[in-house]
Amino acid sequence: MFFASDNGSGVAPEVMAALAADRGYARAYGADEATEEVTALVRTEFDAPEAEVVLVASGTAANALALSTLCPPWGVVFCREEAHVAADECNAAEFFSGGAKLETLPGSDGKLRPETLAAALSRYAPGDLHMARPAALSLTNLTEMGSLYRPAEIAALTEVARGRGLGCHLDGARFANALAAAGAAPAEMSWQAGIDILSLGGTKNGLMGVEAVVIFDPARAEELRIRRKRAGHLLSKHRYLALQMRTYLRDGLWLRLAAQANAAGKRLAEGVAALPEARLLGPVEANLLFAELPEPLVRRAREAGAVFYEMGRTGDRVTVRLVASWSTTETEVDAFLATFG
Amino acid sequence: MFFASDNGSGVAPEVMAALAADRGYARAYGADEATEEVTALVRTEFDAPEAEVVLVASGTAANALALSTLCPPWGVVFCREEAHVAADECNAAEFFSGGAKLETLPGSDGKLRPETLAAALSRYAPGDLHMARPAALSLTNLTEMGSLYRPAEIAALTEVARGRGLGCHLDGARFANALAAAGAAPAEMSWQAGIDILSLGGTKNGLMGVEAVVIFDPARAEELRIRRKRAGHLLSKHRYLALQMRTYLRDGLWLRLAAQANAAGKRLAEGVAALPEARLLGPVEANLLFAELPEPLVRRAREAGAVFYEMGRTGDRVTVRLVASWSTTETEVDAFLATFG
Amino acid sequence: MFFASDNGSGVAPEVMAALAADRGYARAYGADEATEEVTALVRTEFDAPEAEVVLVASGTAANALALSTLCPPWGVVFCREEAHVAADECNAAEFFSGGAKLETLPGSDGKLRPETLAAALSRYAPGDLHMARPAALSLTNLTEMGSLYRPAEIAALTEVARGRGLGCHLDGARFANALAAAGAAPAEMSWQAGIDILSLGGTKNGLMGVEAVVIFDPARAEELRIRRKRAGHLLSKHRYLALQMRTYLRDGLWLRLAAQANAAGKRLAEGVAALPEARLLGPVEANLLFAELPEPLVRRAREAGAVFYEMGRTGDRVTVRLVASWSTTETEVDAFLATFG
Amino acid sequence: MFFASDNGSGVAPEVMAALAADRGYARAYGADEATEEVTALVRTEFDAPEAEVVLVASGTAANALALSTLCPPWGVVFCREEAHVAADECNAAEFFSGGAKLETLPGSDGKLRPETLAAALSRYAPGDLHMARPAALSLTNLTEMGSLYRPAEIAALTEVARGRGLGCHLDGARFANALAAAGAAPAEMSWQAGIDILSLGGTKNGLMGVEAVVIFDPARAEELRIRRKRAGHLLSKHRYLALQMRTYLRDGLWLRLAAQANAAGKRLAEGVAALPEARLLGPVEANLLFAELPEPLVRRAREAGAVFYEMGRTGDRVTVRLVASWSTTETEVDAFLATFG
Repeated sequence: MFFASDNGSGVAPEVMAALAADRGYARAYGADEATEEVTALVRTEFDAPEAEVVLVASGTAANALALSTLCPPWGVVFCREEAHVAADECNAAEFFSGGAKLETLPGSDGKLRPETLAAALSRYAPGDLHMARPAALSLTNLTEMGSLYRPAEIAALTEVARGRGLGCHLDGARFANALAAAGAAPAEMSWQAGIDILSLGGTKNGLMGVEAVVIFDPARAEELRIRRKRAGHLLSKHRYLALQMRTYLRDGLWLRLAAQANAAGKRLAEGVAALPEARLLGPVEANLLFAELPEPLVRRAREAGAVFYEMGRTGDRVTVRLVASWSTTETEVDAFLATFG
Repeated sequence: MFFASDNGSGVAPEVMAALAADRGYARAYGADEATEEVTALVRTEFDAPEAEVVLVASGTAANALALSTLCPPWGVVFCREEAHVAADECNAAEFFSGGAKLETLPGSDGKLRPETLAAALSRYAPGDLHMARPAALSLTNLTEMGSLYRPAEIAALTEVARGRGLGCHLDGARFANALAAAGAAPAEMSWQAGIDILSLGGTKNGLMGVEAVVIFDPARAEELRIRRKRAGHLLSKHRYLALQMRTYLRDGLWLRLAAQANAAGKRLAEGVAALPEARLLGPVEANLLFAELPEPLVRRAREAGAVFYEMGRTGDRVTVRLVASWSTTETEVDAFLATFG
Repeated sequence: MFFASDNGSGVAPEVMAALAADRGYARAYGADEATEEVTALVRTEFDAPEAEVVLVASGTAANALALSTLCPPWGVVFCREEAHVAADECNAAEFFSGGAKLETLPGSDGKLRPETLAAALSRYAPGDLHMARPAALSLTNLTEMGSLYRPAEIAALTEVARGRGLGCHLDGARFANALAAAGAAPAEMSWQAGIDILSLGGTKNGLMGVEAVVIFDPARAEELRIRRKRAGHLLSKHRYLALQMRTYLRDGLWLRLAAQANAAGKRLAEGVAALPEARLLGPVEANLLFAELPEPLVRRAREAGAVFYEMGRTGDRVTVRLVASWSTTETEVDAFLATFG
Repeated sequence: MFFASDNGSGVAPEVMAALAADRGYARAYGADEATEEVTALVRTEFDAPEAEVVLVASGTAANALALSTLCPPWGVVFCREEAHVAADECNAAEFFSGGAKLETLPGSDGKLRPETLAAALSRYAPGDLHMARPAALSLTNLTEMGSLYRPAEIAALTEVARGRGLGCHLDGARFANALAAAGAAPAEMSWQAGIDILSLGGTKNGLMGVEAVVIFDPARAEELRIRRKRAGHLLSKHRYLALQMRTYLRDGLWLRLAAQANAAGKRLAEGVAALPEARLLGPVEANLLFAELPEPLVRRAREAGAVFYEMGRTGDRVTVRLVASWSTTETEVDAFLATFG
């Protein structure tokens, strides 16, 4: 009954098997065959024959590298208040960019509205000597609140951004979950919707630790590779990142794992919604949900061994976050719901 | 016949088995049991009950984090010209430190002499407003040239450094090889010799990708942890780093693997030395050697499938670097030497 | 009729005379007598015998140096949305700090409320691995909106800040105007109210270009001096900064100049308030005011040669900013007001 | 008898008069007329109708801004060991560039030889993933050792640099002295010799504190302006920088002042050379010289009130540096030489 984070799940058996099957020597630093195959797979999956792929071992690295490629040190990245890049990465984007600013924008469900972005941009007079320069937009999908941008919503946002010359980044730590939830193709949710660089997550969805930075404009790739090396994120035995990502993208494994997580999320949401004393906060689109529960229920679940985060409390009402992963079983969900008796 | 780098070797079977045996959920970001056990193991192995351990996935990250903890943005790190931190990490130390300077010092065999360091330091007048501030010493052991510092040599260098208030870092990408070659205890080669922070390598010696930053002064650990997070080097599924390092340090596996690599290095060296037309460059202390060979021999070896780096050529004499790893077999060495026959 | 900014005024005659009277050689980089005298004057004026003083030629430099001394690269500076450090210094604080974050807080009159600060701080859980670390508070007095913090208001804010271990900075680009308006002593408005580092402005108030960073905790001074040098802000002919600041602080010149500016501001405010079609936005405390005027009046003033900034317009109502300086005369004010006639 | 540095001299009377004559209001931040005129003057003097000019108050700022425009954070700047940017600016270039590396090259008289540069560049294999990227060359003229590059010598160096795609910077803290000594036109010594960005010094040669960054490729100017603002080097009362530089460049004042300094340097050199116990170190080209003197002579000069730097001593032989400035008179030089009598 582990619902603290999809980061707490293990490695999907297919992926571990691919790692364990590795034998012998390979060229270090990405000059191996598996790495080459990953690029080919990404290009096919995203219908983007010129896309370049850079693998790293953490989502923070993927995001910070992507943003530093889009935003100069004197730039501004616009994102949501809850954005992982702004709230949970300990100034990594600021560090990698050499001192850029993240301007965090409000909203109600983890999603940015085009008019909010437009209003923020309008406060930066073009050519103003004194202000930092608007440079990038960063969206997260699936959002940190569990909500989902459909491709058209992303396109509406990137259109506003591009009108002011901003580069567009998508933090896809849960990109597969978002794809599965939206029933969209990878291309529709990325470059066709105006995204320049995607952090394509794998770790939360069954990998041991790999995220792919996918750059749709190949002209930016060389700088990104140099930045990766300089940040210590070019791993020497790079083949082990590549083997994971290759397995993930082959034969639709990534979408199958995401679908499992989303199904578990839905079952969890339905169970919680059915509790007379509980309340779901927002619609549940995929594997991440927030709910308000009475304190005794929360205590009972914890005593039964359930693990999850508490996000705040008002009186005896507790807001909890529940995250399902690729490895969450129906049994697990049902056992959890049963603790509420 | 792969002698390009110990980075080209695979994962030791004991380590892969430990990874494959992992089941179920675990707290993310290092709050798992394996991580705790790694710290306990390091403390025991290094006879350093207060040491703190920070795991990362790359040697560049380990070094740059260590140096940025020892050296402020206006500081100077002293190291050898061939030092990996200066020559092969694409300004990572400069990046992590916020703009520190690496002053590279000359010498003949990859080892720094105390008098060279003292002379360099004497050029910095204490209190001079205009110069950067001497802040750290960085040594590598086993050195990039394959030579070995004995503990007393390290102590002689750190004594000079400490006389000017410098912190002392040891890049131990091949620390186990150095230990095995010197027959020294981990403590003797680190804190007892004046080292403040050690980059303890694992990747080149049988791990998939883990280096431990070992901080002997626990007061510096909190800053190092924050720096790791900010640099995107705190992996979410941290247990997989910990499982590798735990296996490595348990029951002397790390030293056994290093001894295998060193024995292969020795066999290689003896075989090359016995060739009438070849010449070893410097004594061979462990698993890394440089040799001068006639061009036809080099060509013949490559045609037979041997993989290694060429470092330069003068006329028809070629300088090559040969690196053995934990997985290099006698058969492999003999097959390589036979190509010259 | 120049009301665009107090930066548009010239150099006070007393100050120019002091510069012109300089003769002969002097030790460079601050080892001159005038520099020593400035420190003595600041200590006396601020009743702070241990304060250290660092002179620079721009307010952005003063602020960024001060904040980088208080806030590590992984830290957060809390300030108002309109704060000059956040809105008008092109990421200087982010640059000097090595990537810190400025969290901008809302409010209605340019002043931060203690409860707003406390609420912002409460969102940072102590010890959270993922978030940046709250590190500093930055206030501006006179505020960018022309409002004034009294010493007790500053103390209430720094008390909240200190409860979480934050260092406290005051951007005093118009500190003399604030002092004159509040009738407070320099000590009351700075260290006695919990301020650690003050940017003491001179440029807007009659100097050619000097701001003093005043550090009340001398332990921080050495780092600040190094940072100044590294940022290219230690001027070689430093005596010319010192001569300006010495003249400014001697015999109350700084407060006399500020009083003149404030009196002109008041006359301007009264005149605008008396116009039937105009509306002052907020009370006018010193030399800076915002007013809403009908567009034809604004046009008429401009046609008559008045220079001032327009901050926005709604329909035919225009919001303008008017700034008086030490050199603004009654004649100038009256001529401006007469254009509306 | 002040020979410590040309930084110890005062402000040339023509320059002080121009400052003192200033009246009234002016647009801040460089939108004033004097600033415009400075650009026009530079274009004429350098025969460079597209050059852009950025004024700052310190030489370190000029150099660091210039280098950061030419060199990315992962780049290498090549310069001499004695280069001011490497030895005396406390990591400013590293700071402004976001962590670039300065590779310092040896030589005997403060001048870099093309073959030394070529050899250094040859150690960077194009496309090497691990090394920092060669990005810029920085020369100083007049050099820190008092020697002089003729235009053809600069051209030979920049040709090597351009062959590897490097940008070329000239630190001209004593550019006027170099021009006067070489009898060269400004264009010959800068863009015609392959220089992209020049730090054109004024402070050492009679200004209060202004250096001009001259960018011959206007495409780089916008970034430089943003970098200046972000570094706190855009002064609000910018007209006072412009008034100084305008006076300096008008009617050949800069070259007259430099010629005076050079003449004083020559007189000093001849006098020292004539002393039986003294030895000039290197030929004296302009206003800066190094000499070896017996200790009793040095003591005697100091007792008589002479101010100069001692650079080292061997036995009782002392190496001193003597710098003449625009304000050094024949009387001063003769009085100094008389102390040895």
